[in-house]
Amino acid sequence: MPQIKILLDETELPTHWYNVVADMPRPPAPPLAQDGKPISLQALSVIFPAPIIEQEISRARWIPIPEPVREIYRLWRPTPLYRAVRLEQALGTPARLYYKYEGVSPAGSHKPNTAVAQAYFNQLAGTRRLTTETGAGQWGSALAMAGQMFGLEVRVYMVRVSWEQKPSRRSMMETWGAEVIPSPSSETNCGRRVLDSDPDSPGSLGIAISEAVEEAVARDDTHYALGSVLNHVLLHQTVIGLEARKQFEKINEYPDIIVACCGGGSNFGGTAFPFFADKAAGRQVRLLAVEPESCPTLTRGRYAYDSGDSAGLTPLMLMYTLGRNFVPPRIHAGGLRYHGDSPLVSQLHHEGLVEAVAVPQRATFEAGLQFARTEGIIPAPETNHAIRAVIDEALACKQTGEPKTIFFTLSGHGHFDMSAYERYLAGQLEDAAYPDEAINSALAQLPKVAS
Amino acid sequence: MPQIKILLDETELPTHWYNVVADMPRPPAPPLAQDGKPISLQALSVIFPAPIIEQEISRARWIPIPEPVREIYRLWRPTPLYRAVRLEQALGTPARLYYKYEGVSPAGSHKPNTAVAQAYFNQLAGTRRLTTETGAGQWGSALAMAGQMFGLEVRVYMVRVSWEQKPSRRSMMETWGAEVIPSPSSETNCGRRVLDSDPDSPGSLGIAISEAVEEAVARDDTHYALGSVLNHVLLHQTVIGLEARKQFEKINEYPDIIVACCGGGSNFGGTAFPFFADKAAGRQVRLLAVEPESCPTLTRGRYAYDSGDSAGLTPLMLMYTLGRNFVPPRIHAGGLRYHGDSPLVSQLHHEGLVEAVAVPQRATFEAGLQFARTEGIIPAPETNHAIRAVIDEALACKQTGEPKTIFFTLSGHGHFDMSAYERYLAGQLEDAAYPDEAINSALAQLPKVAS
Repeated sequence: MPQIKILLDETELPTHWYNVVADMPRPPAPPLAQDGKPISLQALSVIFPAPIIEQEISRARWIPIPEPVREIYRLWRPTPLYRAVRLEQALGTPARLYYKYEGVSPAGSHKPNTAVAQAYFNQLAGTRRLTTETGAGQWGSALAMAGQMFGLEVRVYMVRVSWEQKPSRRSMMETWGAEVIPSPSSETNCGRRVLDSDPDSPGSLGIAISEAVEEAVARDDTHYALGSVLNHVLLHQTVIGLEARKQFEKINEYPDIIVACCGGGSNFGGTAFPFFADKAAGRQVRLLAVEPESCPTLTRGRYAYDSGDSAGLTPLMLMYTLGRNFVPPRIHAGGLRYHGDSPLVSQLHHEGLVEAVAVPQRATFEAGLQFARTEGIIPAPETNHAIRAVIDEALACKQTGEPKTIFFTLSGHGHFDMSAYERYLAGQLEDAAYPDEAINSALAQLPKVAS
Repeated sequence: MPQIKILLDETELPTHWYNVVADMPRPPAPPLAQDGKPISLQALSVIFPAPIIEQEISRARWIPIPEPVREIYRLWRPTPLYRAVRLEQALGTPARLYYKYEGVSPAGSHKPNTAVAQAYFNQLAGTRRLTTETGAGQWGSALAMAGQMFGLEVRVYMVRVSWEQKPSRRSMMETWGAEVIPSPSSETNCGRRVLDSDPDSPGSLGIAISEAVEEAVARDDTHYALGSVLNHVLLHQTVIGLEARKQFEKINEYPDIIVACCGGGSNFGGTAFPFFADKAAGRQVRLLAVEPESCPTLTRGRYAYDSGDSAGLTPLMLMYTLGRNFVPPRIHAGGLRYHGDSPLVSQLHHEGLVEAVAVPQRATFEAGLQFARTEGIIPAPETNHAIRAVIDEALACKQTGEPKTIFFTLSGHGHFDMSAYERYLAGQLEDAAYPDEAINSALAQLPKVAS
């Protein structure tokens, strides 16, 4: 039996994050203020500390990971790289399948990679409190843990319907010391406005973002933290791909295809970007982002300037978007229900350097179930999107006989998502692709800014 | 900062389990049939396959781990040994605290170590189906996964109240392909008898065991699997302590105190036994079993012959017991709510070679919370018992200035137990020590067999 677990010891933990901007063919398009002019750093500094803003606009290839961040990373990093031999055998594919397992973090996903960094840089800049939003709770729990590690108060605006339906995630945040507020709340003007018109509002990620941003703007001691989309978030996540690169070197392998699920883009960017440098230098490697058919940003969205939240409070970013008012159906992969995408991932996709595919919900659970029954680990619903694409590529190899090396990130375990598996097993899960009219209608509301 | 993560690669996975019987001062007391005579192997073979029975009575020091079992172990083993530096700092103790993290298994606990072995030996012996019982679901999920890996059907009788309250664990078992039946059920005579007298019975572990055993006895193609207590189960779990020993060798350390929570004894035995050989050879090392005050088997039970289930279907075993009819209160550490204990652990405790301490529920969650907020990982409620004792020992070292090395097993993560943390944080958790009269009354019903 071949080696199935490729480990790094803690001395091999990366010392720098990789900034893909240094190797992109064109510089990133700048974020714009609502007036269509490039946003000022001053405007950003109301919600982010200076070191984070520096990273957001940096063009340096390597950014040092501060020692206090590495000390927390070491609680679970480097994470293992696995070869999925049992899945290969079940598929009868000549392909070799590898996965990086981020579910070993205390929060059970890749989110702490940036949460810890953001908490550290905020502490360094004198921030006392952080606000953020969370839907299903993956990001909120990661920031709760990170805040606790650096002595910051954390307030999480949690979409009310999730607050009611996911008490485990809520308790997890509280166990790490965070305050969790169901959103819409009476704590902010934005929340009060929603409650005035609909006291029973179930909330949305868009409203929760607006509440968290409003509070960060209003309070001098408080900053805002975001779990995906922005350049600095993807930067912090590159620790995943950097470790994987070292792990492949140890076994003299190099992936032909790199796969990750893609919502806001932090898992995909963190996985794929460290291999992008090689691609930019001419290496043959495919980078494949996988998204849900019900929220097909890269595959059916428009490459245009749009805001990051539904209320339009954030700067405008050039990205693939379905329109900030696009509301995807309630699929179980809550982390992939975002109307836009990372501007960096979007730009690379626009330039043909990153591929994208959209997959339907039921097929993702079929893939996740096959994975659980061969490899043991039960993946999060988001991760099942990547696994679907990996299995499809592996089956294609079976047809052609090509022994390709396929690598993906298992971004989190599914222990908080068992009800989704239950529904799948009971035949109650639906596929929900969006009709063109719905997407076109949302796109028609895009701000009028030249892309 | 010192090294905090001590890893083994998969080539260092143990090749043999360690059988503590070989180093015990006296041979284990034999299990007895209901007539008070030693049980026949014939009687055991109705529910267990031959290789398991051989292990149950073996006196060989080393038992080979078959290659197919090691192949599955490699999906998550060897598990990491961590130094809890941040907890040490928070406590201000000169003690060095180490923990073995078993929560990285796909089921989130140490239970798969024996589930995989039992599934393999059953497959080897031609078993087609396995039955078992589960309370909170840790053991049932482990066996579901293991059965799937070796192509065995698995039927889990799940205590009805847990079946209703823990749908996530139920879905987890079904995701791995097991059939989960709420107990009492109409599938067995035993279940039907209970339902006849109480159609709304919430069930109990005792009833569920009886149902699983009855079905295994009745069907030729079916055997029974148990998740703790018996010698072969503790044997399989020694992979934990064996790995830990190697890991301590790598850093030139040796523990002064070894701590594990103890319900049926498999986590404690698996952790401590591989160090027992050194103790038997004269080495100074304390082995400390930690149990709940609400089910104080080792600390307040009687060392006597008793049956393993409440219906009295199993053989009689010489063990510390509170009486098979003792019903502990509904504490959240479901895995520690067993009226008896492993006969091997019991005998070593009786001979003064294993220490035991009982701790109250609230103090265990206080310890677990401090652990989560320093080390990140949120432990299972069972594990919090060990952490309570570790913190107490570390604080004692702070008083005396002794830099002791303390080692414990973090037997599982708490991601399925967040409601317990929620109740603790809300001040709703109770301590529930049992009055002497209740224990004496249960003990008065012990079978009349000479110990």
